[in-house]
Amino acid sequence: MATQPAITRDPEEERLDRLAINTIKTLVMDAVEQAQSGHPGMPMGAAEYAYVLFTRFLKHDPAHPGWADRDRFVLSAGHGSMLLYALLHLSGYDLSRDELKRFRQLGSRTPGHPEYGHTPGVEVTTGPLGQGFANGVGMALAERKLAARFNAEGHTIIDHFVYGILSDGDIMEGVAAEAASLAGHLGLGRLIYFYDDNRITIDGPTELCLSEDAGKRFEAYGWHVQRIDGHDLLAIAQAIEAARAEIDRPSLIIARTHIAHGSPNKQDTAAAHGAPLGAKEVVLTKINIGWPEDAHFMVPDLVTRLFDELRQEWGIAYAEWCDRFATYGAADEARAAEFSRWHAGELPAEWAADLPSFAPGDKGVATRIASHQTLQALARCIPNLIGGSADLASSNKTLIEGGGSVARGNMSGRNIHFGVREHAMGGILNGLAVHGGFHVFGSTFLVFSDYMRPSIRLAALMGLRVAYVFTHDSIFVGEDGPTHQPIEHLASLRAMPDLTVLRPADAAETVAAWRFALEPRRGPVALILSRQDLPVLDRARAAGDGALARGAYVLREAHGGAPELILMGSGSEVHLLVGAAAALESSGVAVRVVSFPSWELFAAAPPEYRESVLPAAVTARVAVEAGTRLGWERWVGGRGVIHGIDHFGASAPAAALADQFAFTVERVLALAREVLEGEVSS
Amino acid sequence: MATQPAITRDPEEERLDRLAINTIKTLVMDAVEQAQSGHPGMPMGAAEYAYVLFTRFLKHDPAHPGWADRDRFVLSAGHGSMLLYALLHLSGYDLSRDELKRFRQLGSRTPGHPEYGHTPGVEVTTGPLGQGFANGVGMALAERKLAARFNAEGHTIIDHFVYGILSDGDIMEGVAAEAASLAGHLGLGRLIYFYDDNRITIDGPTELCLSEDAGKRFEAYGWHVQRIDGHDLLAIAQAIEAARAEIDRPSLIIARTHIAHGSPNKQDTAAAHGAPLGAKEVVLTKINIGWPEDAHFMVPDLVTRLFDELRQEWGIAYAEWCDRFATYGAADEARAAEFSRWHAGELPAEWAADLPSFAPGDKGVATRIASHQTLQALARCIPNLIGGSADLASSNKTLIEGGGSVARGNMSGRNIHFGVREHAMGGILNGLAVHGGFHVFGSTFLVFSDYMRPSIRLAALMGLRVAYVFTHDSIFVGEDGPTHQPIEHLASLRAMPDLTVLRPADAAETVAAWRFALEPRRGPVALILSRQDLPVLDRARAAGDGALARGAYVLREAHGGAPELILMGSGSEVHLLVGAAAALESSGVAVRVVSFPSWELFAAAPPEYRESVLPAAVTARVAVEAGTRLGWERWVGGRGVIHGIDHFGASAPAAALADQFAFTVERVLALAREVLEGEVSS
Repeated sequence: MATQPAITRDPEEERLDRLAINTIKTLVMDAVEQAQSGHPGMPMGAAEYAYVLFTRFLKHDPAHPGWADRDRFVLSAGHGSMLLYALLHLSGYDLSRDELKRFRQLGSRTPGHPEYGHTPGVEVTTGPLGQGFANGVGMALAERKLAARFNAEGHTIIDHFVYGILSDGDIMEGVAAEAASLAGHLGLGRLIYFYDDNRITIDGPTELCLSEDAGKRFEAYGWHVQRIDGHDLLAIAQAIEAARAEIDRPSLIIARTHIAHGSPNKQDTAAAHGAPLGAKEVVLTKINIGWPEDAHFMVPDLVTRLFDELRQEWGIAYAEWCDRFATYGAADEARAAEFSRWHAGELPAEWAADLPSFAPGDKGVATRIASHQTLQALARCIPNLIGGSADLASSNKTLIEGGGSVARGNMSGRNIHFGVREHAMGGILNGLAVHGGFHVFGSTFLVFSDYMRPSIRLAALMGLRVAYVFTHDSIFVGEDGPTHQPIEHLASLRAMPDLTVLRPADAAETVAAWRFALEPRRGPVALILSRQDLPVLDRARAAGDGALARGAYVLREAHGGAPELILMGSGSEVHLLVGAAAALESSGVAVRVVSFPSWELFAAAPPEYRESVLPAAVTARVAVEAGTRLGWERWVGGRGVIHGIDHFGASAPAAALADQFAFTVERVLALAREVLEGEVSS
Repeated sequence: MATQPAITRDPEEERLDRLAINTIKTLVMDAVEQAQSGHPGMPMGAAEYAYVLFTRFLKHDPAHPGWADRDRFVLSAGHGSMLLYALLHLSGYDLSRDELKRFRQLGSRTPGHPEYGHTPGVEVTTGPLGQGFANGVGMALAERKLAARFNAEGHTIIDHFVYGILSDGDIMEGVAAEAASLAGHLGLGRLIYFYDDNRITIDGPTELCLSEDAGKRFEAYGWHVQRIDGHDLLAIAQAIEAARAEIDRPSLIIARTHIAHGSPNKQDTAAAHGAPLGAKEVVLTKINIGWPEDAHFMVPDLVTRLFDELRQEWGIAYAEWCDRFATYGAADEARAAEFSRWHAGELPAEWAADLPSFAPGDKGVATRIASHQTLQALARCIPNLIGGSADLASSNKTLIEGGGSVARGNMSGRNIHFGVREHAMGGILNGLAVHGGFHVFGSTFLVFSDYMRPSIRLAALMGLRVAYVFTHDSIFVGEDGPTHQPIEHLASLRAMPDLTVLRPADAAETVAAWRFALEPRRGPVALILSRQDLPVLDRARAAGDGALARGAYVLREAHGGAPELILMGSGSEVHLLVGAAAALESSGVAVRVVSFPSWELFAAAPPEYRESVLPAAVTARVAVEAGTRLGWERWVGGRGVIHGIDHFGASAPAAALADQFAFTVERVLALAREVLEGEVSS
């Protein structure tokens, strides 16, 4: 904070600082050595500037890790986790020395890479390179958006920075490049990243594969760029001050460092990147930096005292903010309540009051269009629902009408134009979600979910509440052809743990799907929507659309309630099942139609419910879905048949593709007869 | 070609050029209008420079589209496909006017996005943005590597350029940023890209999301950058000449263009990006550019004649190259034969002569280590086997020893250091493969296959022969924790059409898997390899390792050959099955162990073979794999059980995780008994 002393050249002060820095370095070495696994090099090289940041600038309070206005710190170079753990331990987060000793062990709070929700003070899960970079951009965007909404004349409630540390890998990963371009475009001046320029990667010196002028590149994105000696405490402090003073541009501080700084034989070598230094080298390093060679996990009293004092200051800063917030609340109770509700992730009481309904009928509505109408209703009731598209808003139908666009100088906009940057969108959505304050969604074509898959995975791993709107969900994309037609995407998303995939069959299910996506729950949700119009189905003969939350339900019951055949499917294929059921029924077959929008939800439903929808006794089953058949075996069983498409599509109008690949009532009928005859003959 | 006249300001010449350019523009408008679908704007804006490139510079011969030394043209902005189709048609490729009229129709040669292998003259499938950019980098690398190998004093056999057109989307996509950085690093001076700077994206003006200085950014990567008026023919020609003259740096020509150039009402609007102009606007545009308003798909005779003449020149150039190649062959027959063999994708006769073998034993060998040994043997026999890693060569074990590194100034190296750029690696591998001349592989951790998934998909769609080496293939990554532990990746790769996924169970299967990957075949192969040591299995009681190519085989037969139980699995779990089988057998159960390295191959095997491995009558089955269970139902059937892991992993030593998640012989035994009892009781 501004009131903290900057670094001086006072020898006594520097002696104490170096002692603390060496404490970090030795904790890192000792933990990696104890685990016989980990990455000592980067933390040892980054210890100086991370220390200066944590002790001189970072606004946080280890006693209140959920403080809404704390600075966020993102270790994008997540493999350097011990750097963060050492700092969190020293700062007084709930992370004991014993946990450091259990680095990388089962059940410890010190996993190999930092994990959000697992370790107090870890703001986001990092490790897959480039992700943290994009997360920080999302956090910095959240901060400015909250500031725009809540700060008022004389009341500055949100006013924090987002700091982070990047490795060479973060500099090279495309997702970071995308996010950097957008951060520069939006002028996110509260974002300050150190680029740990140690010139060593796993495979050797960076000169093997990297010779770009990163500083110039970031200047081209519109960033403020500085270059410093990353081991010079005064230079570090001055660079941070200059970066904080630059409010219109994000900042990159290129810190030239030496990997495994202090190690006599492993400094500046790739050997120090991802393996323990070795007991002998640890001793030599300790001797080299003036540390007792037989000390392990040692924190000198002076260092303990230093952080005790810092904790007092941090506590005071937090208390001051609480006072400010109380004053703010006294001035405008409703706004303060709204602030708290936004940060708690709560929805307004009447958030779902305005949802559209759709009368059954064959006059088609594309589910992307139904989604659009639903989104408008939700956006009217939920002011902190924000999102955007990777340059396909007009196709995804995800523009919040009247919501304005997020732009440099207009942070109150609700529509984020991510550009053709799906991966950064994924990472930024995670940053927005993990920061707190917003309900978020992002959209693109389903086929391009592949571009952002690593970010979706991290949303799932962190249990973040992000909604993905993936439209153009099958070969029925049509003329754009196989490059734009998803085949394997439903299966590959269903395979991901803790992601809920919902493929609504019609407009009514789409409303229910959005409702599900907004309801309190852990983890991300993917809405899989059609480009083409789909009939609104008649539910008069069975369950209502509320059943979507159970994953699958009886959409149309067999006359008499005792089906001999079950037709099941999702999305745009369900109406084919309904058509086939009518024809089969007229020829005397008792057929049930099951709409199956979500495998995950159905798998999680109570066994009795599952048995009621798919009775074990009814083995004549047909599943139809315009995607790979992989995995449907679970639901159709050994005697069922699956009609899908296990090969790439083709460029043609959707109707021609329906004929070509036999997504027709006739084909469903043929398969139904086949499976029924198989039953008889078996 | 250098001998062709450059653009002059001669009015008659310009009149003819403009006539040809307007032919392109009207063909584009007419085709999109006829299809009532497509992207007219970009082709109309890019027609001038594409025309200048094709008529004044491009070295190609439509009569010999497979010419090894032709220039490659990459329409990275694949949505502008009609631009390419119009040029191919006019140039004389086997693409008739009728095909233009069937734009985007089922079975036509003019799909919505250009498709490699589908339309003569289309060098690579593009559409998903950024991919073409990276493909071109791979092609330019292939060219320099072939030149380094084959050109000799007085014999220049390989000497071509790679041209391409980028859209705003290509500029924004991370995969392009990664590839651009690597192209600059390697100094690929034969690469010349136009950036079609029309400042309009699908969602509106680019200022919504893009304000970086792209030129400066590319300079930072080490590129040669020019800025021109993209409608000025002379400026275009001069820029191309300057780009060709710059041999040490790739070139970016930023061509300021107007989308839907010539359209009175839709020029410079997003409306022209992805939808037909409309019949009325087409007429107005034709009037505006002096075209007969009622002409459709018209090619004026003058234009036909112009391209007839060009075709003659192109034919002469090709014939000259053939002469040069004949002289080259006369000077060194063996080298010329090798050149031809490389380009035909043929393997040397004795390519597999040197493969290692591994004696059965419990002394473990990680499959990544077995892969390393196999790769060395292959590399010794196959001189054009090249590849690399996204900065994990030392972990993936994919360094070709003694192969040297590809570097600026040493293009003969066989190890490519892609940097932490998985996605660019994927795109560059596709470019290398589609160029011809090499057998290629790329490697990273399995969990990071997500970063390059869009490129893998395009390799599959194009049927390219790329081998992926994905190591660290399960939770047994260990201490790095859940961010680095694949769970869903096997399933999500298996879901992709035309990709063959191989997860060998031991060193012997690893050798067979590599062998399979190199054998003539369409489509990419993913080798899924363990970090940890695995026993080399004893195949004495059943099939040899050659059975891998059928996807699954009986590794250990039940005594008497009549199993009552089948244990199946892949990779690192197979040895657990063998252990369990021994224990079960000693308690009198007749158990068969099936090693199941590839679902795709087994699914494609003859039904009789499948029945012989998994007899329908044996319904007591257990599948074990350290990944999501999704999809195994197909193989275990309705009564089988699956032991997998459907949730994220944890950071701990691998042995602790094996206990925690019960990947143990004991658990297999328990499941086996469960399923056997289920049999009895059913």
